[in-house]
Amino acid sequence: MRIFDIINKKKHGKVLTDTEIKYVVDGFVQGEIADYQMAAMLMAIWFKGMNDHELAVLTQAMAKSGDMIDLSAIAGKKVDKHSTGGVGDKTTLIIAPIVAACGGKVAKMSGRGLGHTGGTIDKMEAIPGMKTALDKEEFFAIVNKLGAAVIGQTGNLAPADKKIYALRDVTATVDSIPLIASSIMSKKLAAGSDCILLDVKTGSGAFMKTLDDSIELAQKMVNIGENSGKKTVAMITDMDVPLGHAIGNSLEIIEVVKTLQGQGPQDLTEVCLQLAANMLYLIDKGSLEHCRKIAENSIKDGSAFKRFVAMVEAQGGDTTVLLDTDKFVSAPYKQAVIAQNDGYIVKMDAEECGVVSMILGAGRETKDSIIDFSAGIIINKKYGDFVKKGDELAILYTSKQAALPEAQRLYNEAIVIGKEKPVDIPLVFARVEKDKVEKF
Amino acid sequence: MRIFDIINKKKHGKVLTDTEIKYVVDGFVQGEIADYQMAAMLMAIWFKGMNDHELAVLTQAMAKSGDMIDLSAIAGKKVDKHSTGGVGDKTTLIIAPIVAACGGKVAKMSGRGLGHTGGTIDKMEAIPGMKTALDKEEFFAIVNKLGAAVIGQTGNLAPADKKIYALRDVTATVDSIPLIASSIMSKKLAAGSDCILLDVKTGSGAFMKTLDDSIELAQKMVNIGENSGKKTVAMITDMDVPLGHAIGNSLEIIEVVKTLQGQGPQDLTEVCLQLAANMLYLIDKGSLEHCRKIAENSIKDGSAFKRFVAMVEAQGGDTTVLLDTDKFVSAPYKQAVIAQNDGYIVKMDAEECGVVSMILGAGRETKDSIIDFSAGIIINKKYGDFVKKGDELAILYTSKQAALPEAQRLYNEAIVIGKEKPVDIPLVFARVEKDKVEKF
Repeated sequence: MRIFDIINKKKHGKVLTDTEIKYVVDGFVQGEIADYQMAAMLMAIWFKGMNDHELAVLTQAMAKSGDMIDLSAIAGKKVDKHSTGGVGDKTTLIIAPIVAACGGKVAKMSGRGLGHTGGTIDKMEAIPGMKTALDKEEFFAIVNKLGAAVIGQTGNLAPADKKIYALRDVTATVDSIPLIASSIMSKKLAAGSDCILLDVKTGSGAFMKTLDDSIELAQKMVNIGENSGKKTVAMITDMDVPLGHAIGNSLEIIEVVKTLQGQGPQDLTEVCLQLAANMLYLIDKGSLEHCRKIAENSIKDGSAFKRFVAMVEAQGGDTTVLLDTDKFVSAPYKQAVIAQNDGYIVKMDAEECGVVSMILGAGRETKDSIIDFSAGIIINKKYGDFVKKGDELAILYTSKQAALPEAQRLYNEAIVIGKEKPVDIPLVFARVEKDKVEKF
Repeated sequence: MRIFDIINKKKHGKVLTDTEIKYVVDGFVQGEIADYQMAAMLMAIWFKGMNDHELAVLTQAMAKSGDMIDLSAIAGKKVDKHSTGGVGDKTTLIIAPIVAACGGKVAKMSGRGLGHTGGTIDKMEAIPGMKTALDKEEFFAIVNKLGAAVIGQTGNLAPADKKIYALRDVTATVDSIPLIASSIMSKKLAAGSDCILLDVKTGSGAFMKTLDDSIELAQKMVNIGENSGKKTVAMITDMDVPLGHAIGNSLEIIEVVKTLQGQGPQDLTEVCLQLAANMLYLIDKGSLEHCRKIAENSIKDGSAFKRFVAMVEAQGGDTTVLLDTDKFVSAPYKQAVIAQNDGYIVKMDAEECGVVSMILGAGRETKDSIIDFSAGIIINKKYGDFVKKGDELAILYTSKQAALPEAQRLYNEAIVIGKEKPVDIPLVFARVEKDKVEKF
C-alpha cells in the first residue's frame, strides 16, 4: 500500500477502502506518512469529500489512535453532549443537572474557551474551589452517585485528530464539513458514552454560518455516531444572537443558577429544555414529549438545581455563591452601553459580542491569557427589542478600566438599530436523527 | 501576504495576483513556505487550474529562480525545440542540422533518458568521443559557426521547477496539465532562445495519452511562451507507435544518418520535415510551405548531413562512424522476434517497446543505470503491415543474453496481430499556434 496511490484515488473522487483509511491515519500518526503527503490528501478530501462509511472508518481510526475511555464502571446508559461552540453558551451546566435529576448519566468532559467563544471549564472555575481535574475513580464515583460530573479533558484523546487538525490549520483545509465532523466525533467516540447529543450552532457567532452547512455537518456527525454504534441526535440551534443575557464566566454561572431555578431568560431555558429532552430521549426515558415534560418538572420541583449544587459540592466548589449569587466577586468597573437611536434591534452580531467580552477580560486572546472571572456583559436589550435613544443596551463588567472605551465602541458596532421590527429567529432550526431531518 | 490565504483563494477557484504567485514560488524555493503548504497549494491547483496569465507568471517566476541563459553572443534568431518524450524519438539530431543548413540557429540543451523513453544526450554519446558537456563559449562558438550544437543541460536552470516537481512526484500532483506546462516551459524560458517549437507526443507511448489532453497541454505551453515574449508553435505528433524503425542509442544514430541522407523511414522523415519547417517558420524563413521546401532540399543536396557531421566533429565526436555506420560496435547477441500468426499489426504499444529496449540495456531503469549503446530494437514490421506466421517482426540487440527471453516475450505482447487492416494513424495530429488550433 502506498500513500501516493491513496491520494491519487481520492483526488479522482474514488471511495477508499477501510484498510486504506486506517493506513493513512496510522501512518500519519506514526510519522511514516509525511506532512506534505497528508496535506495533499486533506486537500483532496476537501474537494472530493468522503461518503458516510469512509467517514465513520476515518473517525474510528482517529479515535483509536489514543485512549478509548471505558465508562463501564458507571451504571446505566451514559449520554454525552457536544456544542460546536458559541457566545453565552452555558447550556452544559444547566442540562447535565436536569438529565441527572431525571435519572440519566452524564460523564462530561468539556473544554476551555479561545477567542470569542467561552468554555464550560472556565465557567465552572468561576465557582471558588471548583475542581475540574478529577482522577477517573473520583469522576466515575460522582457520576454514579449524582448522575453528572463535568471535568476538563483527561488522557490522550484522539491524538490523530490533534495532529491532523494542526496540519489543516496551516494548509487551509479546516473548512471541510467531513473533516470537521470527523474531528469532533473522534473525540466523542473516544470519550466512551453510549449516546451523543450534538448542539450544532448556526449563525454569525458560530463556525457554521448557514443553516444548510449546519444541517450537513449535523447529518455527517449523526451518521458517524450511528455507524459507530452510538445513538446520536443533533439539534441545530441559533448562534446569530448570543444565548441568554449573560456573557462572561461568573455572570454566566449566575444565569445558570437562575435558569435552574426557573427564572432564566426564555431563550436559554427553551434551548436547554429541548437539548435535555433529547438527551433523555436518547437514553430511552420515553417519548420526546414525555422527556420534555420531566425536564420541565425537574426545574419546577427544584431537583435539577439541587443536583447542580450537589455536583458543585462533590467537585469541591463553594456552593454558598450558588445559594446567594450576590456573593460572587463583582467586577470593579462597569459601564453601560447606550442606544444612539430609537428603533428595533435588527442585528446583534454574536461573534462581535464575544470579542467584546474577550476584550473585557472574560475570554482568552491566546492560549496563555488569564481569565478575569468577573468580567463580561449583561445584555439588557436583545434582538427584536424596541429601544429608545439613551436606553441601556448592555452593561459591561471588567477589571481593566482602559478596555472600556473600545469595548463600548465595538458593542455599539455589533448592534444595528432599525425602523422595522425584524422577523423572529427560531431558537432551534432543526433536529437531525438517523435518516431524518426535521426543520422547525 | 500569507500562504494560507493564497491556498484558500486558489482552493475556492479564484485568480491569484502576480505578486501572490511570485510569493509562492520564491517563498517555496527559499524554504519559507513549508512543503506541506506547497503540497496543499499544488493539489488546489490540480483541482482548480490556472488561467493563461497566472500560468505565464508562475512559469516566469520558476524560470527566474535560477540562471537565465543569455544567448545574445549568438548572432541571429535562436530557435529551441522540446519534445515531451517518446520511444525512438531521435528527431532533435535530424532537425537541428536541417535548421542549421537552412540558416537557423539551434543552441539546444537536451536531457538523458529514464524508464521507457530515451534521451538525446545518451544517443549522442553513442558516437565515440562525442562531448555533450561544453563550456558556454565553446557552445556559443559552434552554434555561431555551424548553426547548431546539442549539449546536456548546463547551469542551474529553474531550480524552482526541480523542487516543485520533486514534491508533485510524491503527492500525486504530477498529472496536472497546467503544472506540466509550467514545468516544461520554465526550463525553455530559462534556456534563452527567441522561439520555441514544441513536439507534444500523444498516444500509448507518451505522457499524454489522449489527443484532447495533448492539445490542451500544447495550448497552455504556447500561451506561456507567447505571454513571455517567445514566438511558440506546438505540433501534436503520434507516439502510439515508436517513431522510425530503430530504438536504442547506436541504432538510432544510424537511423539519423540514413534519414539525413534521404534514406530514412517515411514516418520519421515526414515528422522531422514538419518539425524543421515549423522551426524555420518561427525564425521568419518564409511561409510554412517555403520552409518545408528548403528543409527537404537540405536533405536532397546533402547540406543537412554535412552540418551534422561538422557538428559532431566540432563536439569531438568520431565522424568515421557516421560516414560508415558499419563501424559502430554491434551488440554481441541478437535475436529475432517471430510473428505467431498471419494478419495485420493492429496495435504496437510504444511504451512496451520502450520497456523492451530498456531491458535489453538501451535505457535506464534508475538514474544510475549504465547504458549499453549497442543494445536496442530494429523494427521490421510496423503498425498496419501485413505479416505471415514466422516473419521476423523485429530484431533485438543486447550484451545481456539472459535478457533476451523476457524481451522477446514482452515484445510479442506489445504487438497485436488482427484480421482486418487497421485505420491509418496520422503522424501529425494537430498544429497549435497562438489562438489557433489546426487539426489534420
